Amino acid sequence: MDETPIQVEVLLYEGFDELDGVGPYEVFQTAGAFGGEVEARTVSLDGSGRVTASHGLRVGVDGALGDPDVLVVPGGGWNAGDDRPGARREAERGAVPTAIRDRHETGAIVASVCTGGMLLAEAGVLDGRPAVTHAGALDDLRATRAEVVDARVVDDGDVLTAGGITSGLDLALHLVSRLCGGDVADRVTTELEYDRDPSRVVVTGEADE
Amino acid sequence: MDETPIQVEVLLYEGFDELDGVGPYEVFQTAGAFGGEVEARTVSLDGSGRVTASHGLRVGVDGALGDPDVLVVPGGGWNAGDDRPGARREAERGAVPTAIRDRHETGAIVASVCTGGMLLAEAGVLDGRPAVTHAGALDDLRATRAEVVDARVVDDGDVLTAGGITSGLDLALHLVSRLCGGDVADRVTTELEYDRDPSRVVVTGEADE
Repeated sequence: MDETPIQVEVLLYEGFDELDGVGPYEVFQTAGAFGGEVEARTVSLDGSGRVTASHGLRVGVDGALGDPDVLVVPGGGWNAGDDRPGARREAERGAVPTAIRDRHETGAIVASVCTGGMLLAEAGVLDGRPAVTHAGALDDLRATRAEVVDARVVDDGDVLTAGGITSGLDLALHLVSRLCGGDVADRVTTELEYDRDPSRVVVTGEADE
Repeated sequence: MDETPIQVEVLLYEGFDELDGVGPYEVFQTAGAFGGEVEARTVSLDGSGRVTASHGLRVGVDGALGDPDVLVVPGGGWNAGDDRPGARREAERGAVPTAIRDRHETGAIVASVCTGGMLLAEAGVLDGRPAVTHAGALDDLRATRAEVVDARVVDDGDVLTAGGITSGLDLALHLVSRLCGGDVADRVTTELEYDRDPSRVVVTGEADE
């Protein structure tokens, strides 16, 4: 690992689920505060200053999507339909999936929370790969080329997926453990007073750090 | 219960912990979407439009603190010192504790997450009452007139307190169960894919609904 902290970008879009995005953001930020060589920021495709999440919370965005080491993709509003803000509309529009595919092809670790996994599927990065998503979207994920796995988090090396909403905490803690070490992950877990269950993380791929 | 939905206000201030506030907000919002007679919004003391949370997230505020049925008080930055944004600075300044005391005296249920409990203690509403806070602030809570309880959530009727950060989810789910019914709370728990453990909620007071 070189001297530059690992750059994590959490990709926000209109209708993202609040906890899908804020959970991992806080985990990575806390890891950085506890000595982990990691920095997290919120981004949007075009760097627009503020987005409105699926339950109405308005969240500021730090800048435009860059070339992060880790790209976190929240879900949200999948069942709201493609005419409402959310992951399904972004899947239809295509710009977010294209950006995910680009970052994955240039070496980023891509990690989804909840129905963010459907955006990874649309991007093609789940083709032939083990993956999971929110329980309410599993049938939709099965209709893609992904291989659905029964787990809270699936780590397939350069592609990770998580189940619904709060499983984003487990995804981020698992990535902190992988990238910053188990001690940092344990300290973050304690700080968050979270009941983490690493046994529900299925590792199917090899890390390349 | 009358026809008007239960009004929940989540009180944000500079340096509040992101998940302390966003977790309960999303739980109550989801409960409302699932048929619970509850509405949630974010507020600040003066209604200022945006606050910056303890890990740097900028969050919009829906308006000024009103007269909610339930006032949720997040923690954050307790150990950052009283010259940095956060709960300790708000405890020193006094306006937030005064507002908490006022709302409690006029009949609101007051519920804290994490070191928001220290703001309740400063407000005097924990005098002689069982309570909990983030593990890192338990010694400070013991130095007040509160009676510290070993629990994830303490429900003392019109005053509820939770442990650190993610225990705010348990607090909010418990309140949803109490105010909207167990079925709604179960549906929200399933939607959030959260490992809720109601056995870690200690009920010491009587609900007055």
